[in-house]
Amino acid sequence: MQRKIYIENMPLDEARQLWMNHLSSIGFCSPLTETIAVESALNRITSKAIYARRSSPHYPAAAMDGIAVRAADTYGATERTPVVIKPDHYVEVDTGDYVPNNFDAVIMIEDVNYENNGVSIIKPAVPWQHIRSIGEDMVAQDLLLPSYTRIGPFEQAALLTAAVDKIEVIAQPIVGIIPTGTELVNYGSVDMAPGEIVESNSHMLAGLCQQCGALPLRHKIVADDRKQIKKAVLEMIEQVDMLVICSGASVGREDYTAVIIDELGELLVHGLAIRPGKPAILGSIKDKPVIGVPGYPVSAQLVFHLLARPALFARQGISEPEEVSIQCQIARKLPSHAGVDEYVYVNCARLPNSYYAYPLNRGAGITTSLTKSDGFIRIPRGNEGLEAGELTPVVLHRSRHTIDNTIVCIGSHDLAIDILADLLQLHYGIRLISSNVGSMGGIMSLRRQETHLAGIHLLDPQTGDYNTSYLKRYLPNTNWKLLTLVRRQQGLIVKAGNPLNITNLADLARSKVRFVNRQKGSGTRVLLDFLLEKENLKSENIYGYNHEEYTHLAVAAAVANDACDVGMGVYASANVLNLDFVPLAEETYELCILPDLIDPEHFELLIKIIKSQEFIERVTSLGGYNLEGSGEIRLSSQ
Amino acid sequence: MQRKIYIENMPLDEARQLWMNHLSSIGFCSPLTETIAVESALNRITSKAIYARRSSPHYPAAAMDGIAVRAADTYGATERTPVVIKPDHYVEVDTGDYVPNNFDAVIMIEDVNYENNGVSIIKPAVPWQHIRSIGEDMVAQDLLLPSYTRIGPFEQAALLTAAVDKIEVIAQPIVGIIPTGTELVNYGSVDMAPGEIVESNSHMLAGLCQQCGALPLRHKIVADDRKQIKKAVLEMIEQVDMLVICSGASVGREDYTAVIIDELGELLVHGLAIRPGKPAILGSIKDKPVIGVPGYPVSAQLVFHLLARPALFARQGISEPEEVSIQCQIARKLPSHAGVDEYVYVNCARLPNSYYAYPLNRGAGITTSLTKSDGFIRIPRGNEGLEAGELTPVVLHRSRHTIDNTIVCIGSHDLAIDILADLLQLHYGIRLISSNVGSMGGIMSLRRQETHLAGIHLLDPQTGDYNTSYLKRYLPNTNWKLLTLVRRQQGLIVKAGNPLNITNLADLARSKVRFVNRQKGSGTRVLLDFLLEKENLKSENIYGYNHEEYTHLAVAAAVANDACDVGMGVYASANVLNLDFVPLAEETYELCILPDLIDPEHFELLIKIIKSQEFIERVTSLGGYNLEGSGEIRLSSQ
Repeated sequence: MQRKIYIENMPLDEARQLWMNHLSSIGFCSPLTETIAVESALNRITSKAIYARRSSPHYPAAAMDGIAVRAADTYGATERTPVVIKPDHYVEVDTGDYVPNNFDAVIMIEDVNYENNGVSIIKPAVPWQHIRSIGEDMVAQDLLLPSYTRIGPFEQAALLTAAVDKIEVIAQPIVGIIPTGTELVNYGSVDMAPGEIVESNSHMLAGLCQQCGALPLRHKIVADDRKQIKKAVLEMIEQVDMLVICSGASVGREDYTAVIIDELGELLVHGLAIRPGKPAILGSIKDKPVIGVPGYPVSAQLVFHLLARPALFARQGISEPEEVSIQCQIARKLPSHAGVDEYVYVNCARLPNSYYAYPLNRGAGITTSLTKSDGFIRIPRGNEGLEAGELTPVVLHRSRHTIDNTIVCIGSHDLAIDILADLLQLHYGIRLISSNVGSMGGIMSLRRQETHLAGIHLLDPQTGDYNTSYLKRYLPNTNWKLLTLVRRQQGLIVKAGNPLNITNLADLARSKVRFVNRQKGSGTRVLLDFLLEKENLKSENIYGYNHEEYTHLAVAAAVANDACDVGMGVYASANVLNLDFVPLAEETYELCILPDLIDPEHFELLIKIIKSQEFIERVTSLGGYNLEGSGEIRLSSQ
Repeated sequence: MQRKIYIENMPLDEARQLWMNHLSSIGFCSPLTETIAVESALNRITSKAIYARRSSPHYPAAAMDGIAVRAADTYGATERTPVVIKPDHYVEVDTGDYVPNNFDAVIMIEDVNYENNGVSIIKPAVPWQHIRSIGEDMVAQDLLLPSYTRIGPFEQAALLTAAVDKIEVIAQPIVGIIPTGTELVNYGSVDMAPGEIVESNSHMLAGLCQQCGALPLRHKIVADDRKQIKKAVLEMIEQVDMLVICSGASVGREDYTAVIIDELGELLVHGLAIRPGKPAILGSIKDKPVIGVPGYPVSAQLVFHLLARPALFARQGISEPEEVSIQCQIARKLPSHAGVDEYVYVNCARLPNSYYAYPLNRGAGITTSLTKSDGFIRIPRGNEGLEAGELTPVVLHRSRHTIDNTIVCIGSHDLAIDILADLLQLHYGIRLISSNVGSMGGIMSLRRQETHLAGIHLLDPQTGDYNTSYLKRYLPNTNWKLLTLVRRQQGLIVKAGNPLNITNLADLARSKVRFVNRQKGSGTRVLLDFLLEKENLKSENIYGYNHEEYTHLAVAAAVANDACDVGMGVYASANVLNLDFVPLAEETYELCILPDLIDPEHFELLIKIIKSQEFIERVTSLGGYNLEGSGEIRLSSQ
């Protein structure tokens, strides 16, 4: 008797309110505490006021090296009438030593003259001079740290000094994480069958828990079986403060989570008006909060961020760290579904007139959109999206410093760009972000002044020259410089051993040959079309001509994994995947740089890296590259 | 044959340059690396570029639940002319499933009509629709993470997905810490003799190491014995990347460190033109850096911050996090020694017209100046200090949010203020910082508009009334409100059992009685002087009349520790230290609040706390308090 659990479309604010109220009602927002050693309390938070248990110093202490005396014994001392103090009327002290309480002053060693029958003094001591009084630093029963103080190294030192060796702190919430899905396999599996997916979400969620001060407890993978999932939930709920169930990506499967929560506890919400992350589930079992997160990684982390994170901070009685955001111009139009709060991950960079945000691939399965991103844009419900150039806040999770030290490269893709990015980071701490939108896309970004540079390789079929005619046409009144990055082999990427014996373009039209193309506007597509026309070949006759990939490596991977038989791309991408290659042409891949937009020092270091032996060697080792002239400015607009 | 090692006074910049050059020359700035599991790599830093080892998806994957077909089989399908696909010409797929490579499109389950002999379709499929292509997220050999990327949860997920289970990361530098000093004892010692000091510096330095990404290795306490220190240094230098020796506080003793470095390696610097921290030592042994830090905690952490920290970041090949600072008006004159770079720790708060910085006790032994502080002011060499009201940058180590949520209370001390502070933090996340400068000091701060409120208890000897006449005189054209905090018992604090049988003020003048006074300008001092005059007693006859302490607890501690026999203060401070008390008067302790300066919400919550049962109970339990009328506004200026 399985009850049907409908998926709602609840607005986020409403769901959050319901959720936080429910958490309060089940007692989740009352912090638990534990007593731990101060020595291992770094970064923990005090749960109540801590009072000093011993004064420091706990005795009157000499603040100088010298002698302790009674000030009254020194009265009247002058250079002409020195006072001699007998050995039983003073005691030698070093800094920090106890000043016995029959003395009330310390005289610096520099002012003491040793004589046969004692010491002579030529200046009277002021009572209590050079004595640190008891409790100068802290007095027993002083309030040392109020409630909710985060323990740092200074606090540790002060506590130990105050004879407080153990303290009561907020307990770290324990979060159980159950990955479910028959398609999931543990990482480390060498040969994965098609349809198998590495279970990485539970590891990501564990890291996110740690960032909230919580302790994650990962369950092993549970197959898509209602009984097994229920068993895992019932076992784990006893050991944790909160449970996160990672559902499979499919709607049918994740319903188990909602059904089980409904059966064992209280199902609060199933389905949020957010994107990604819609199939989120909120509820509780045995008065412990349970969250169901969708299977796609971008959705999973977003649901955690929006709902688990605030709950975990509330559990610890502390407020969520405030969001840091900057205003950015959005580099391209971002349509949005009016019915949902939409979250779009972006890269950010600083250009002279504004910060820019560059939207990343919005697919919920694109983990690399998370690793690349600097933050996200939130497009609220009721809003149909953002126009290109519109100013919008970006909530950052990377430092402003990184963003300020970023070079943006939009345009065509080449493996040498990645090596350039790595070496700039390695040697100069400069980040280079690249967006692969093809050469024409790069030129349009230059035209809109929203990138520092573009990688381009556009053949002019009339002249046989690369790039120049396009720049003159699209960047007429612009200051630009054209820098040679590499020359490279373009050709057909075929399976190892070339089983279909593809030797020229005409072979693409053969009936059993499956081709994969590059996207419109890419230099490689321009080159292909030029070559097809030259040989009078028709694209309609090529199966897969409309199947587009966005990078050379994606084309090579499609061939390697038998998604197709042949694609066009650079030699290097065939080489790294151990595929065969049929050369068609050598072409020039250049960087078009806008000197008015790029930091002059960044420009200089960019050229320095490209000319470096390390860059030349790493690119050469990929194969199919010619680095003659690399790093030279071939042409300037002015 | 002990060589004399002179203490220099080297400017910090010069020392830092010498030090960093030396570190480079001994190879310290070349990061070491290690290979670790991605699962335990959270917060670590990649030492080289990481490339994907498997594409994701590594197979063409269904992006929807539905059926996989050949698009060509669906051509021509319309509502009027549906196309029927036979069972051997399609396959059912769920989201994420493998789409076998004889199919090239997925049709959503909603668009599929099951029939007896197959499925019927009323719309043709576009080739490659609803299929995630191989490598949509990442392609094998894609640059996944460049060098020097910090691993977060997103990076962990991406690495595992990319079949990268282990990565090469920057090794954490190991820092040896040797505490030296015959006066030192381990924390946990219950009864400490006068002259013994808890060894807390090594724990503080260990925490500071961790904050730099280093691993601390603490040695046990070593006595002030050259042979023993040398033995510890030689043993430890083999196990670590850097060595920190915590010297004793006295100049004579710390010389061992310099002598030993000079003997075993290279002594670079002994003595810096900074304050605190002058006796710092820099050098190397067996090509490993060695730092000698002074024994006072404030000096120790400053030398670590200025010299060990940059070295540890350099060791890891990353730049030090940038300092965050805010411009503050300095609340009082800060004289400085022109010959040194001086570091002064301060509290900060926001007042309507400016941020203010309140200097804390500058003693190098005052650990609580570190725990209280929000940051420090750097007064450069050649500068003789800052005038009150001068604008100066404060380098923050606490969040702006904390500073913006701070109420400042300057004036007299009362234990109830600490309870108020704790409850404001506990219930509302508002910080209350208090500075104990006595009632008159508080009134002067109100007059200069640099505090939100002041705690005052000033008796007017003419009228017998508290506070009013002072406020009228010193805050003539100011909007103020006077709020009752507590009424409390003032009297003489004497040892338990009152061994000297002190029963009234006249007894203070007895020959064997050692008194301790409160500072000038404090309400308690005003009360004492009033009572002495009333009884015709002369202060010159009281031994210790000029011995001043700054809080009630400090007076009580002086009595408890036999630094004196009697002092004047509130009943509660005698009570918490189990001392006896001779009552003299009940007085009113009030808060004078400037409504134009304090956040209205803060003001409201302050009153709410003072009137709360929790506040009343905690204060009452201290003894000697009367909370009738607490939280009521007794008087307003307007």
